[in-house]
Amino acid sequence: MMTRRDLLGGVAAAALMPVTLAPGAALAGIARGQGGGFCRHVDPFIGTGGHGHTYPGATVPFGMVQLSPDTNTAGWDACSGYHIQDSTILGFSHTHLSGTGVGDMLDVLVVPRVGPVRLDPGTPENPDEGYRARFDHAEERATPGDYRVRLKDSGIEAELTATARAGLHRYRFPAATGAHLLIDLAHGYQDPAGSVTRITGASLRLVGDDTLVGGRHVHQWGQGRVIHFALKLSRPFAGARLYSNDRALPEGAREVEGAALKCVLDLPDAAAAPVLVKVGLSAVDVDGALRNLEAEIPGWDFDAVRAAGAAAWEAELGRLAVRGGDAADLKIFYTALYHALLAPTLFSDVDGRYRAMDSTVRQLPPGANNYSTYSLWDTYRALHPLFTLAQDPRRVGDVVGGLVRMAEESPAGPPVWPLQGTETGCMIGWHSAVVLAEAAAKNIPGVDYARAWPIFRDRAFKGQTSGLPEYRCLGYIPSDTVEEAVSKTLEYAYDDWAIARLAEAAGARDDAQALRQRSLNYRNLFDRDTTFMRPRFTEGAWAQPFDPRGMGHSRKWRDFTESNAWQATFLNQHDVYGYMDMFGGPAAFERKLDELFTTSSDLPDDAPPDIAGLVGQYAHGNEPSHHIAYLYAYTGAHHKTQARVRSLLKTMYRADPDGLAGNEDCGQMSAWYLMSALGLYAVDPVTPIYVFGSPLFDRVDVTVGDGRTLTIEAPGNGPGSPYIQSVTWNGKPYTRTWISHADLTRGGRLVFVMGDKPNPRFGAGRDDRPPSFDMARA
Amino acid sequence: MMTRRDLLGGVAAAALMPVTLAPGAALAGIARGQGGGFCRHVDPFIGTGGHGHTYPGATVPFGMVQLSPDTNTAGWDACSGYHIQDSTILGFSHTHLSGTGVGDMLDVLVVPRVGPVRLDPGTPENPDEGYRARFDHAEERATPGDYRVRLKDSGIEAELTATARAGLHRYRFPAATGAHLLIDLAHGYQDPAGSVTRITGASLRLVGDDTLVGGRHVHQWGQGRVIHFALKLSRPFAGARLYSNDRALPEGAREVEGAALKCVLDLPDAAAAPVLVKVGLSAVDVDGALRNLEAEIPGWDFDAVRAAGAAAWEAELGRLAVRGGDAADLKIFYTALYHALLAPTLFSDVDGRYRAMDSTVRQLPPGANNYSTYSLWDTYRALHPLFTLAQDPRRVGDVVGGLVRMAEESPAGPPVWPLQGTETGCMIGWHSAVVLAEAAAKNIPGVDYARAWPIFRDRAFKGQTSGLPEYRCLGYIPSDTVEEAVSKTLEYAYDDWAIARLAEAAGARDDAQALRQRSLNYRNLFDRDTTFMRPRFTEGAWAQPFDPRGMGHSRKWRDFTESNAWQATFLNQHDVYGYMDMFGGPAAFERKLDELFTTSSDLPDDAPPDIAGLVGQYAHGNEPSHHIAYLYAYTGAHHKTQARVRSLLKTMYRADPDGLAGNEDCGQMSAWYLMSALGLYAVDPVTPIYVFGSPLFDRVDVTVGDGRTLTIEAPGNGPGSPYIQSVTWNGKPYTRTWISHADLTRGGRLVFVMGDKPNPRFGAGRDDRPPSFDMARA
Repeated sequence: MMTRRDLLGGVAAAALMPVTLAPGAALAGIARGQGGGFCRHVDPFIGTGGHGHTYPGATVPFGMVQLSPDTNTAGWDACSGYHIQDSTILGFSHTHLSGTGVGDMLDVLVVPRVGPVRLDPGTPENPDEGYRARFDHAEERATPGDYRVRLKDSGIEAELTATARAGLHRYRFPAATGAHLLIDLAHGYQDPAGSVTRITGASLRLVGDDTLVGGRHVHQWGQGRVIHFALKLSRPFAGARLYSNDRALPEGAREVEGAALKCVLDLPDAAAAPVLVKVGLSAVDVDGALRNLEAEIPGWDFDAVRAAGAAAWEAELGRLAVRGGDAADLKIFYTALYHALLAPTLFSDVDGRYRAMDSTVRQLPPGANNYSTYSLWDTYRALHPLFTLAQDPRRVGDVVGGLVRMAEESPAGPPVWPLQGTETGCMIGWHSAVVLAEAAAKNIPGVDYARAWPIFRDRAFKGQTSGLPEYRCLGYIPSDTVEEAVSKTLEYAYDDWAIARLAEAAGARDDAQALRQRSLNYRNLFDRDTTFMRPRFTEGAWAQPFDPRGMGHSRKWRDFTESNAWQATFLNQHDVYGYMDMFGGPAAFERKLDELFTTSSDLPDDAPPDIAGLVGQYAHGNEPSHHIAYLYAYTGAHHKTQARVRSLLKTMYRADPDGLAGNEDCGQMSAWYLMSALGLYAVDPVTPIYVFGSPLFDRVDVTVGDGRTLTIEAPGNGPGSPYIQSVTWNGKPYTRTWISHADLTRGGRLVFVMGDKPNPRFGAGRDDRPPSFDMARA
Repeated sequence: MMTRRDLLGGVAAAALMPVTLAPGAALAGIARGQGGGFCRHVDPFIGTGGHGHTYPGATVPFGMVQLSPDTNTAGWDACSGYHIQDSTILGFSHTHLSGTGVGDMLDVLVVPRVGPVRLDPGTPENPDEGYRARFDHAEERATPGDYRVRLKDSGIEAELTATARAGLHRYRFPAATGAHLLIDLAHGYQDPAGSVTRITGASLRLVGDDTLVGGRHVHQWGQGRVIHFALKLSRPFAGARLYSNDRALPEGAREVEGAALKCVLDLPDAAAAPVLVKVGLSAVDVDGALRNLEAEIPGWDFDAVRAAGAAAWEAELGRLAVRGGDAADLKIFYTALYHALLAPTLFSDVDGRYRAMDSTVRQLPPGANNYSTYSLWDTYRALHPLFTLAQDPRRVGDVVGGLVRMAEESPAGPPVWPLQGTETGCMIGWHSAVVLAEAAAKNIPGVDYARAWPIFRDRAFKGQTSGLPEYRCLGYIPSDTVEEAVSKTLEYAYDDWAIARLAEAAGARDDAQALRQRSLNYRNLFDRDTTFMRPRFTEGAWAQPFDPRGMGHSRKWRDFTESNAWQATFLNQHDVYGYMDMFGGPAAFERKLDELFTTSSDLPDDAPPDIAGLVGQYAHGNEPSHHIAYLYAYTGAHHKTQARVRSLLKTMYRADPDGLAGNEDCGQMSAWYLMSALGLYAVDPVTPIYVFGSPLFDRVDVTVGDGRTLTIEAPGNGPGSPYIQSVTWNGKPYTRTWISHADLTRGGRLVFVMGDKPNPRFGAGRDDRPPSFDMARA
């Protein structure tokens, strides 16, 4: 331990390794990272414009702490607390969501200031009425684990870096009177539509002359989140005042309980030398926060902590080592990879304690880590397949195993959208089943599938979640009784398919068979006359009126989840051939796919903003579309997948703050890019194969399995050459349009020979098309 | 106003009239009450022992304030805060539930004390460790609107009385040092099983030298209840200290916000003269509480307030004027009537503001009152029929109309168990439909049935409440997916029947027809082989194993709600003849009824305590059994109803603290007694008739409709003469076993000639049996 700590300049080893890695892996990664310099390709500002909803601040891979500036707390585009169009900063808080469509977090805001104390944040229009500070983006910089900005009016220079469970600030104050830090524990995301951050119970306590500890019980998207912190200054404060509801406590008060709490720490000698502030977090208690802080940042060497963070990023980014490629593509790729490694986030303390889904504090088994913030509706599609392919299997085991732990501990059963010890229940379906089934199908070790099965079985056969009872009774969810019934039916059907795989892993063959049969329920909403998935009423009739671009049959509620019938009609990941037959066969299905991409992109006025990134009615900006371009592989026209995927790679992602077509969604938007850039995509993550697309780079070396290398090459590639001419696998000709997970993770060399003309014969043969449903059932 | 106020000695008129009554009605009632002296028959201690869960403190009919001693706050028998077996008093709080099976309320505890301040309540075993005080029941007295007790150790004498929205305390302190009042705003019901009263936001503020105001946002059974208060002393306090989490605020602090707040008011001269404390409540805000207090108790005349309360009780009790009867029967009867008039409770301020079910503050139309605390699963059966028969129709209109208002304002739609601005969702079904349908069937004015219809229709046809989706799809709720599925199916079927009547009132004939058809769904759970209602699985098979005394087919959950198959098998109030046919006809059904009352009363170990008051497997202590003794009327063996009802009247109610067979349930247990003692019972409240039973008293004059009199006489009656020989209605022979609501509320004279032998011919003819289903449909 001492050696390692010394080596890293005062940063404890645990800080770099939120998860258990093979001994030496972190250092090995650093070594390789130093060679590659992948961090220099990352631009954390990508996604901070438009509706990407990312944040630019400092964090380590999967870190608990995301120390980042908050520029806005109100409205949809403030979900991460930051938007590139803002020109004032409230301060720097320690937790942020990456790319979600709902706001929360923003815990423990630290505001460095000079002059008179302001307790109110002020407004973007009138920052001087509060503690906001103006800034120029020209004076702002971010690289992985490193954020810097100069506050314009005061001249304060702020630098932020982080370890897994702690944040470190370095402030350079100008010579000015009234230098102080404000710690605003009432700060949080505020939705003008009515969802105000509600705090029920908070505390602040001054310890000695350099430490402030506290915590809060907070209700926003996550109802009843618990967060504690321990903050230490690099030198004593000269005075400290506590506030409750913006009223100062009497002089000398050292602690306060209440709801809206703040603290001001006076730093009269601030300009003498940089002021460092380190903050440990814990969802357990203040002791946990202190322990996390002391374990991860025992000293005051800012540069060493920052270097350690960068090294950790190098190690992770280096798992996908691109050789060649143009600068813009590399920036998009490595920023995507950076974004893909931000969530789930670590949610256990250095001592192994964590806050469970029932809000109790529990102890992990030795060596395990607990995670939270799983945006499962999004991430089951490509982010988790990216992890299973290219992350350390032990980390994947921790991430997937955490879902089993949560299912056991949560009053709500299998996770839907777990956020920091709370279940938001956000979005539809219960896709933790898919992540678990995928892991089972790919033999990820360290997950107790048999223990998970009864809990997931219960949800499938007895669950009362919105529409599930009707789904079981009628075989579909009627749109006259349940909102978003079409999307729910289709996603429950896919979840059935997924947990059938889990049933199999647990030896429950009859259940597996019943669930596979039930996964065909999607057929009950297919209207052969219009060849669309359509809302249907309880008595069996199709809902009227029907407009495939519309949100549903009435204004009362939507029949689709962030989508319309065009997108929902292709929401089939598991039974593509069976589905195709309902259209009249591959040719008819292919024509419908063509139409999807070429029909007018008009949407009705009441369409949600999530339906974005339109190509025809294909909507890349939201997740239900993500597998669709790969469906041509199943019709035999694989070259159309190649062209479409390459086009999406080139048009839907830009090296620009507004470079994402929609919410980043905790890594899913980026994971689509990463998998597609590799030339691979898991149309159905539960079937352990990847469908080929159109690889973007000449060569990528991917670290797979326990450190083996998968090399993907694409000779002849180029902007005008998206088409696969032929493929070899480990030197042998390969005619299939897909490859198995088992093959890839053994390592090897996959070569796509590219050209500027389609090769319609590639993948045209029936035997070369990807398996779906039937084969997987065997 | 002045005249009235003078007349009543300083009590504002509004205090006596929480609801709008006919001009002069209150005074007329007082006059008659003074003649009858009905209050002297009321023993508020009945129900405070065993599992009655009543409280003995001071309140007015349907009053918002129930000022009563709290002796216990933990465990099932502390639901009202009081149990007769306790020997210590924590203090006197202002809100209490009458007879529920779940605890809550207990707002604004006032503790009169001498000696050192104690902030902790202490335990019953060691009261001296806290502020508890010992007392003897011999030194305790309660009559309607009047409670008195002497605290043993200190010698403090406490008297409590109340108006509709305010409580008045009178304390006589001994000559002792350290006299003070503790106001504990953290006090509440504490369930050792884990449901602790949680306070999220509370405030206390001292105003001048005689006033304390504040409020709290409290989460217990009701999640998010809001309550404010204004407390005034009859003379200034000498000092005051505020506490947060039992830590004193600095000297001179005048207000505090937090969660667990207390206040100590010093009264060094307390022994000089009685100390009066008056407390106004409001669910709206402190201003509302102050306004309520000033409007209802402007002065300090304790005796006048108490006399006014007694007069209000006399007026209400006098609506059912019993002539003759033995002392014990009178005590049971008038205590039952007293208990029947405690809930729903007033839930709007003197200025017409109230806290709606969405927690917003709203304004009532002029002259209206808002109510809350509707124990609908219980009270739809007999309490609301008692109201429709014997309460002022305008009050009934307010009580029923409040359900429509709540349905419109509540995020949860039609009320299930609304508690003080929150929806607890407690118990099963959604029986606000029954109360509304009953009112429609009986033409209660002042209720907007057409406005209610779409909201209730939504629940019926689209509701997602537990099991409703399956109920709609399968025609029953399967016990493999939903707990208590048998009881839910049967109660949803009855609710269908009820809202069909509402559909009719709104002119929705097709819906009415569909719902009546659907109300026959109960048939899908009747097993003709065993002739029991049985749990059934999704696929159609009966659940195994089956024991008609058991709680269900597995230990995972119960298939019945506080009942077993014996009781559930008779849970049919609306289609008795159709149901009878399934048994094989009236004779077979009658045999099954006989068996119910004569089979062994054994219950399995896991039976809930609610199944009580057993006669065979008939359980009078809980509501699902309440109509069953009257079902003999439908088989033609009415004399068996007469014998059974009389026996229940005589055995299930005693003039004793432990005199109730089960929870009082906000008046339902008593309402069964009252209706049955009159000789009438609404087996199906939605069909506007009453089935005869066995009248208990020689004569009762009931005030019905707009002040008309219904006289019920029973010549020849006596302990050994429960049998009806013949009946006359307004002097003419009457052969039916039932009479319509319309007839009774026109007033008249109903004479039952009683005898000691059954007259099997009475009610034997087909045409004389009560109508059910078919006729009501016409």
